[in-house]
Amino acid sequence: MLTIDLNCDCGESFGAWELGDDAAVLAYVSSANVACGGHAGDPTVMRRTVRLCKGLGVAVGAHPGYPDLQGFGRRSIPMDLEELEAAVLAQVGALHAIARAEGVALAHVKPHGALYNDAARNPPLAQAIARAVAGFDRDLVLVGLAGSALLEAGVAAGLRVAGEAFADRGYDPDGSLRSRRLPDALILDPAKNLAQAIDIALAGQVTSVGGARVAVSAETICLHGDTPGAAERAAALRRGLEAAGVGVRALRR
Amino acid sequence: MLTIDLNCDCGESFGAWELGDDAAVLAYVSSANVACGGHAGDPTVMRRTVRLCKGLGVAVGAHPGYPDLQGFGRRSIPMDLEELEAAVLAQVGALHAIARAEGVALAHVKPHGALYNDAARNPPLAQAIARAVAGFDRDLVLVGLAGSALLEAGVAAGLRVAGEAFADRGYDPDGSLRSRRLPDALILDPAKNLAQAIDIALAGQVTSVGGARVAVSAETICLHGDTPGAAERAAALRRGLEAAGVGVRALRR
Amino acid sequence: MLTIDLNCDCGESFGAWELGDDAAVLAYVSSANVACGGHAGDPTVMRRTVRLCKGLGVAVGAHPGYPDLQGFGRRSIPMDLEELEAAVLAQVGALHAIARAEGVALAHVKPHGALYNDAARNPPLAQAIARAVAGFDRDLVLVGLAGSALLEAGVAAGLRVAGEAFADRGYDPDGSLRSRRLPDALILDPAKNLAQAIDIALAGQVTSVGGARVAVSAETICLHGDTPGAAERAAALRRGLEAAGVGVRALRR
Amino acid sequence: MLTIDLNCDCGESFGAWELGDDAAVLAYVSSANVACGGHAGDPTVMRRTVRLCKGLGVAVGAHPGYPDLQGFGRRSIPMDLEELEAAVLAQVGALHAIARAEGVALAHVKPHGALYNDAARNPPLAQAIARAVAGFDRDLVLVGLAGSALLEAGVAAGLRVAGEAFADRGYDPDGSLRSRRLPDALILDPAKNLAQAIDIALAGQVTSVGGARVAVSAETICLHGDTPGAAERAAALRRGLEAAGVGVRALRR
Repeated sequence: MLTIDLNCDCGESFGAWELGDDAAVLAYVSSANVACGGHAGDPTVMRRTVRLCKGLGVAVGAHPGYPDLQGFGRRSIPMDLEELEAAVLAQVGALHAIARAEGVALAHVKPHGALYNDAARNPPLAQAIARAVAGFDRDLVLVGLAGSALLEAGVAAGLRVAGEAFADRGYDPDGSLRSRRLPDALILDPAKNLAQAIDIALAGQVTSVGGARVAVSAETICLHGDTPGAAERAAALRRGLEAAGVGVRALRR
Repeated sequence: MLTIDLNCDCGESFGAWELGDDAAVLAYVSSANVACGGHAGDPTVMRRTVRLCKGLGVAVGAHPGYPDLQGFGRRSIPMDLEELEAAVLAQVGALHAIARAEGVALAHVKPHGALYNDAARNPPLAQAIARAVAGFDRDLVLVGLAGSALLEAGVAAGLRVAGEAFADRGYDPDGSLRSRRLPDALILDPAKNLAQAIDIALAGQVTSVGGARVAVSAETICLHGDTPGAAERAAALRRGLEAAGVGVRALRR
Repeated sequence: MLTIDLNCDCGESFGAWELGDDAAVLAYVSSANVACGGHAGDPTVMRRTVRLCKGLGVAVGAHPGYPDLQGFGRRSIPMDLEELEAAVLAQVGALHAIARAEGVALAHVKPHGALYNDAARNPPLAQAIARAVAGFDRDLVLVGLAGSALLEAGVAAGLRVAGEAFADRGYDPDGSLRSRRLPDALILDPAKNLAQAIDIALAGQVTSVGGARVAVSAETICLHGDTPGAAERAAALRRGLEAAGVGVRALRR
Repeated sequence: MLTIDLNCDCGESFGAWELGDDAAVLAYVSSANVACGGHAGDPTVMRRTVRLCKGLGVAVGAHPGYPDLQGFGRRSIPMDLEELEAAVLAQVGALHAIARAEGVALAHVKPHGALYNDAARNPPLAQAIARAVAGFDRDLVLVGLAGSALLEAGVAAGLRVAGEAFADRGYDPDGSLRSRRLPDALILDPAKNLAQAIDIALAGQVTSVGGARVAVSAETICLHGDTPGAAERAAALRRGLEAAGVGVRALRR
């Protein structure tokens, strides 16, 4: 049976501030990207989120970001590559220790926000992230944008990598994500989300803006957990994939 | 041959701010307590410090503190015990990951500042720290004030523990450290420091304020790295111990 | 016409994290206590909140707290009094500058959370806060728990002070707030909230737990903005007060 | 008598971390740029620094930077202009309040580090800073690199501005500071520092790298306080200027 991984970002609360309805969305995914205190999350939130994932049988991965609570990891913080590598190690390690105390092994690492975007385009930065992950644990799967520099860097570092695609984002004919500044960047219709998810899982292709078919090689699809109706959308996507004969399963370590 | 461990706190710089002359003092100790980003230290400082220790053959331990950069871990931050346990895990994990990428395994954990003092006196808090360490890695040695609640909690959690004594602090006749508010709290004379260190290592005793002999069961002696002349004092202490037939060796994991 | 001030805490978001529905509740109060970046708030949130208050004609006050984003100002951070005084000055000054650029003068200062509670009971700490406020601007009104040490300290420092009372909290027969650990600490029934508010405004008394009448000398009543239905409760309280002939008006500077 | 202002950055300690020997260098300058908690400084450090300046008769100015303790304000943090404007207001306001409680009025504002450099080249960013300063207090002098976009923005915002020049930096023939990546960027010889300072003060010119004379219109010269021998160099420069008939005097508000 064909399978695909569904992942969502979570654990992005901080202290008294709650963000997202993790419990609702995690019920429908196979992998969780847990914030590690860099852009969001704190030790207590990390622990609560790991416990939630463990209870639901969801694979736990680290979701490191630029160390920037004020900017929620959405700003590209200028860091030299050694500094960035150490920051990723510290964040992954913090979550690893909290997970280990719960008897949970980390499955993957997926960078967050601006770090994710920068790693997709900037090979030296991607290599620094891959070095951090490989230096810590060669069995971790490195997750990044399908076809991006991060996956290349991961492979070169000897890591298993997994490309990520989006059911709710438009693609340009060259296979890249359509810029959010252009029309058709977002696909809001749930039926179209499902169709694109099935397309990615079964055909390894999507219909790009304009109509041309384009290859998207992805092993995991990202669900957004912090939008209104996120849980309902997640449920519908999962059920639709399963009805189409696509199993939802976490990435193999 | 009789041996004792000499330890010092290090890695307590942060960003552009330098603290202590780590390289100078680490040359004379067998164990280093490396700040983990809670009260001091950042990922880059942690990495630099681990590399320094590795080069010098000094055992690397974690030095978690209350998460309080502004107060340098010297203030007792009110935290519930679950929160504290998670904070210790996150700090130890951050350093562990950075050390692992350098091929260095952590040897011990010694709390910092107010956390060290609170853990010496407050059994539930001590148990939370011990739970964090044991939950992460049962082979880590838990270091705390000789005779304190932290060591008891460590033993109860199944950890190997090591009592810490001070060559430059006065002891009261009941074996407790003399309060810094009282006279004779600090022993400034290097010859007396050495005599007390030898006493601790060879006899397991010190001469307390007033003259009575009192048992101090310690496997490690703390050197202070951030005072003027710290390196010279460290060198003299190490040479004096060795001349007295006491080997300086890291704690056995 | 008899008047009373209604105040609420606001501006307690931080970066990407939203807290409370300020716009909804501010519509019904006469005074706003705006977080100043210590326990919550950041410069952008402060500015947005000041603009909101200005648009609604609500008096803007500073709401300084212990510098503790992780704990949201709900933990008593050990600080020496000089340090606390400087921290309050810095927070009040930050909001003052942002407000001044909007053409808004600060009207009052009300401490937040653990700082509010500590200031109610601890005269030296209360005096440090009063010194900060008086040192910055003698025309600011210092708001604190009715009958508390903070008001006494404010008067001694030459400040105009205003006691705060609660429509939704039970009072003990000695006039103190009933501990949240005891039954009848919270008054959830909106009709009872209104009755108590009117009682405070018109009689300067409340019916304490057990039934005895007790004096509560308050010029302002606190509305909570971060509970479900906060806006509806605020609206009902304001309308009920006005229907009872009590005008809602900000504190006189 | 011809006069010039000598300024230095100060108050850049944080908590337990000390940076620079403020007391030694402040003895020789007429203006101090005091860190405001953005890139360095905390309320206690600010207060201590303001008191030091007051005692020495040195004019106190605000030294706002990107909000980035980890990077000490040396990194360009991506901020939208509204956010930056609010951040500058909050920092200037924090220092203003602490200074006011000491009876000291702020004299000027000089951005720090990456913010200084960005403001020299980026007109919209420079305008955001100027808007913040003018929105807070039109009597503050805005200090920036001589000939830079920040001074232009200040003039356009109705502020009095002051150009800053450097006695220890080489200038290119076009009047810009020589890049630190090129030879002759730094002038280490104290005699040459003094000659260049006198040149700036008396002639409004410097001899650029290559020998051509170039105009540098500056009312203030920056002394660096965190280099070895900073105090001695400051003393020599001040005495040399006075011996050459140039008075050292703070900027006129």
